[in-house]
Amino acid sequence: MFKAIIYVTLKEGVLDPQGEAVKKSLHVLNYEGVDEVRIGKFIEVWLKSQDEETARRELEDMSDKLLANPVIEDYRVELMEVV
Amino acid sequence: MFKAIIYVTLKEGVLDPQGEAVKKSLHVLNYEGVDEVRIGKFIEVWLKSQDEETARRELEDMSDKLLANPVIEDYRVELMEVV
Repeated sequence: MFKAIIYVTLKEGVLDPQGEAVKKSLHVLNYEGVDEVRIGKFIEVWLKSQDEETARRELEDMSDKLLANPVIEDYRVELMEVV
Repeated sequence: MFKAIIYVTLKEGVLDPQGEAVKKSLHVLNYEGVDEVRIGKFIEVWLKSQDEETARRELEDMSDKLLANPVIEDYRVELMEVV
């Protein structure tokens, strides 16, 4: 069994309206030191796979097809074997 | 200047309907080895603060008030000094 964490972020240069909204709210709450906010997501996946290489290939495949939008998002796969 | 990453996850035991939906979609795409999916978010914050301790306290404060919902979510703050 493997556990993966896929971190998905907006590509640099892509506007992050949700992050902007959070930044403004933080300023309203008097956290004026806040300079920038960017929001990302991560997906934890537990999966059975014959070996680590296959698992990684499947996860990259899933990310390209479903978990991330390759046009505006980057992703990074962290993979570990679990019992 | 500090950069923080706040990782927000649903508490264990809290249902994750978005993760369930992703798991089902992955099964439809023939990734039958997928056992469980949980979705979290992370918030990158760049902020000015007099020292690391103050920055950490402010970030925990922000998380409790705005970034996470302490009733159903846990969070973890990762903090580093940047130039």
